[in-house]
Amino acid sequence: MAPISPAATTTAALLDAVATGLVTHDLGRPLTVGMPQSPNHPQYWHALPRRHGDAVRADGGSAANDIITMGTHVGTHIDALAHVSHDGRLFGGVDAVEAGRGGKFVDHGVHTVAPMVRRGVLLDVPAAVGDPAGLPAGHEITPDELAATEQAQGTEVRAGDVVLIRSGWGRLFDDPDRTVYQGKDTGVPGIGEAGARWLADRGVHAAGADTIAFECLPPGAGHAVLPAHRVLLVESGIYIIETLNLEGVAAAGAHEFLFVLSPLPLFGATGSPVRPLAVVGA
Amino acid sequence: MAPISPAATTTAALLDAVATGLVTHDLGRPLTVGMPQSPNHPQYWHALPRRHGDAVRADGGSAANDIITMGTHVGTHIDALAHVSHDGRLFGGVDAVEAGRGGKFVDHGVHTVAPMVRRGVLLDVPAAVGDPAGLPAGHEITPDELAATEQAQGTEVRAGDVVLIRSGWGRLFDDPDRTVYQGKDTGVPGIGEAGARWLADRGVHAAGADTIAFECLPPGAGHAVLPAHRVLLVESGIYIIETLNLEGVAAAGAHEFLFVLSPLPLFGATGSPVRPLAVVGA
Amino acid sequence: MAPISPAATTTAALLDAVATGLVTHDLGRPLTVGMPQSPNHPQYWHALPRRHGDAVRADGGSAANDIITMGTHVGTHIDALAHVSHDGRLFGGVDAVEAGRGGKFVDHGVHTVAPMVRRGVLLDVPAAVGDPAGLPAGHEITPDELAATEQAQGTEVRAGDVVLIRSGWGRLFDDPDRTVYQGKDTGVPGIGEAGARWLADRGVHAAGADTIAFECLPPGAGHAVLPAHRVLLVESGIYIIETLNLEGVAAAGAHEFLFVLSPLPLFGATGSPVRPLAVVGA
Amino acid sequence: MAPISPAATTTAALLDAVATGLVTHDLGRPLTVGMPQSPNHPQYWHALPRRHGDAVRADGGSAANDIITMGTHVGTHIDALAHVSHDGRLFGGVDAVEAGRGGKFVDHGVHTVAPMVRRGVLLDVPAAVGDPAGLPAGHEITPDELAATEQAQGTEVRAGDVVLIRSGWGRLFDDPDRTVYQGKDTGVPGIGEAGARWLADRGVHAAGADTIAFECLPPGAGHAVLPAHRVLLVESGIYIIETLNLEGVAAAGAHEFLFVLSPLPLFGATGSPVRPLAVVGA
Repeated sequence: MAPISPAATTTAALLDAVATGLVTHDLGRPLTVGMPQSPNHPQYWHALPRRHGDAVRADGGSAANDIITMGTHVGTHIDALAHVSHDGRLFGGVDAVEAGRGGKFVDHGVHTVAPMVRRGVLLDVPAAVGDPAGLPAGHEITPDELAATEQAQGTEVRAGDVVLIRSGWGRLFDDPDRTVYQGKDTGVPGIGEAGARWLADRGVHAAGADTIAFECLPPGAGHAVLPAHRVLLVESGIYIIETLNLEGVAAAGAHEFLFVLSPLPLFGATGSPVRPLAVVGA
Repeated sequence: MAPISPAATTTAALLDAVATGLVTHDLGRPLTVGMPQSPNHPQYWHALPRRHGDAVRADGGSAANDIITMGTHVGTHIDALAHVSHDGRLFGGVDAVEAGRGGKFVDHGVHTVAPMVRRGVLLDVPAAVGDPAGLPAGHEITPDELAATEQAQGTEVRAGDVVLIRSGWGRLFDDPDRTVYQGKDTGVPGIGEAGARWLADRGVHAAGADTIAFECLPPGAGHAVLPAHRVLLVESGIYIIETLNLEGVAAAGAHEFLFVLSPLPLFGATGSPVRPLAVVGA
Repeated sequence: MAPISPAATTTAALLDAVATGLVTHDLGRPLTVGMPQSPNHPQYWHALPRRHGDAVRADGGSAANDIITMGTHVGTHIDALAHVSHDGRLFGGVDAVEAGRGGKFVDHGVHTVAPMVRRGVLLDVPAAVGDPAGLPAGHEITPDELAATEQAQGTEVRAGDVVLIRSGWGRLFDDPDRTVYQGKDTGVPGIGEAGARWLADRGVHAAGADTIAFECLPPGAGHAVLPAHRVLLVESGIYIIETLNLEGVAAAGAHEFLFVLSPLPLFGATGSPVRPLAVVGA
Repeated sequence: MAPISPAATTTAALLDAVATGLVTHDLGRPLTVGMPQSPNHPQYWHALPRRHGDAVRADGGSAANDIITMGTHVGTHIDALAHVSHDGRLFGGVDAVEAGRGGKFVDHGVHTVAPMVRRGVLLDVPAAVGDPAGLPAGHEITPDELAATEQAQGTEVRAGDVVLIRSGWGRLFDDPDRTVYQGKDTGVPGIGEAGARWLADRGVHAAGADTIAFECLPPGAGHAVLPAHRVLLVESGIYIIETLNLEGVAAAGAHEFLFVLSPLPLFGATGSPVRPLAVVGA
């Protein structure tokens, strides 16, 4: 990022920027019935209780509407700090059982996550250190690989950034066998505890990936242990974003962007479906 | 908006702007069980199937999660073009019954709504033409009042803008009697058919308000006729955003801003809950 | 009930009985979107994700299906013993917080309620001691009134019976104002703590009523205190059945019957929607 | 069934029968999160929005409650006649698309299914004609096998009966791999079109089985064609009951019983979860 300009940006200047033709990359996956998701969370389902033609008003108008049922950790989503505890504690030492008393996480629920309008960095790991199509199933991305990617791209990770780590696994999201993307038997690539510490040491605000689990799942291990979740959510107060679509932004070679994410303020919930954006200059 | 600068904005310049201290106004309402909403749509509900302490892993970790059921026209939300038909047609003459065949609106569903990063204009009508606290129940905002507000504020509405119309009704969202904000008996203020035509003539991209219904509901009329929905959604292809929280952005006197809205791509649905942002310069 | 016959009943004799023209009274209310229910529980909602014509197979067949979301204490339903605790204990001294650990009541959940094929007794209180149309709002049915009804009808309440107490309030279920049946402002008639003790002293197996709350709600008191629930569910292990339709069985003058209730075995839940039957001889 | 006795059965005689120690076999499967079900229907999910300890009233009382989301063709359930159409028609020639207009099947919805208190017959096919543990995957039960079973058991199928056909597949319901019971790859045993005509010719009221699909699914065929559903639901007006637990009643050798089934009157729905009972003499 260039040095901060001495004079504050005006709204007019901001809108000038928009008018010059910014490109907005959509990082969210469509939510469809039957899409791959973790079986630990309520399945996404949608139906139309009313369709057009069901009840037409005298003036010729009609309205169709929807019913949705879902977990909050399905589709592209963000984990609030309330999602994970370790040794009975949430981030900041909050008692995890007490925090959920009443059925709502008043502290650390997703309604406490401020909308993000921040510098975003894509670390396209396979493009820098492997087969650009994607890392192998179960591969743990090391701090060295993160640093090598940072260098190869020329995009330094800074405090306050949102860092999105591409493994290439996202290309499997639309596989006809919806369990492939889950990677239950194969494992999935991603960072581990060491990679999480590397991110925490940089002081990032949030971190995301193109997998359901965000972090490396060794083959056959399931979700038995999630050390990167512990380091980021519990120890560091860093949000995690999962099931991102990073293929388009990677194909465009956009490694630095304005990252915008506005989680639904679902009071007391542990996460929210989101549709984050990566905005780049013309 | 100032004339478009000849040279394109770079990502670096955009991030410079962010770094100077932009202010982000949150225009979304928290989603809480029991919040006011239209009784025509499935009620918002949230529960925690798992809480911390329910199942602690051997390594000391545990995860809590959620289940959500809801309509898509509850809380702060956007109407897709599929939501309303007139004389059997959606926008562009699409057959409304056929469009919903299969239980998904492949055409005009909310997954077809592109994320918005656009100029936004707040028309603070009561501040310009009435009691700043809010317009009376059932008051229809006329084109003259819209134009007077535009002039008083010095914020011209232009093609492609997102226009947010404050009536002041949003102050009633937290009334202990959750039916007050619905305004079933009293009616609610808002534009009518004429106001909708004024917006359509300006070529706006989307329009929003701080009420559930967006448009004027005369006292006791219920949702029997919704001419502004017809003009905007069916005749003009203009999206509608409802149940916005405009009190903060109005109190800040922010009448022009970068408007960001990223609807969930709920495949085939007629709307989506959203948390829009108004970003202003320092 | 007549003295137990010395010889056991054979299945053939049972089926003979059926063949002679038993009359089955349906004691369940239809579940419809918008029906009156307690606002403390998730609203009943139904939609058709698929309708006929959405996807016709090559052989000309098609299937329509449903999605349901609901609380378990809506419509005609039974309370499992897990539903209510007092001073931290469920029936039998079970620790109420521990019992719900894991998000399922393994003990005292509704899956532990055995199907009922038992003697049932209707106590038609208003027919015996008041205006047959129904008791006044907020009227507490006393033990004396229960005993007077028992005597007037000639139907002795015995150990193991299911006792259904008609207040007449059920006639308001279909009131166009769906809050009337809830009786939030008016209160609703029903037994109180003393009536519950009378039932417990008789050793009944379950007790039901034609109101949402089962017990008397004094005008304006809401659900602040529910002593009959405590006496029956927590102290006595007696199930409670609510929102029954007792108008038909009362109109038929059927005060003694074979009562059949088969709760859904919703594992770990605190209640279940049910459709109980009262079977009487020809 | 023995000849109908000339004198009508009295309620007292019916209760005498109950008092002699009838045995009630529970034919319903517990509903648990993650149980095997058809992936075509919304997944069963349950959570506790409130647990004990969340909000204790001043008098020491507290209430826990539930939220349920589900399809109606999951767990043990009954198909209403609205569930299946052929060549655009429901049973009786009803226009299938029109019948679903409004999002509710006013005609042939499950709320129109009267509670059943009828003679029930178990046809334990594998016990009569194969390996008593169960028929092979994908085996089509022929009319000859049905007749042979009827004869071997000495239980004639009569008009108005509810006939439950055991294939033995139910033993796989609790297999740790929840897809085994679905039988997607293996196929499942059951009757085919010919068996359905045999049942229709006998004039049965309803027919059930211990599989999700009720009828034979040849290996690898999926649900592509369901001729028995067509013959029973569309051509004959005979209800279908699926995912029954017939292991207990079969082990007890109970081939004739009083069958009781009381579907939830879910207005306009195509099916309902049920917990049917088989009541036999002492």
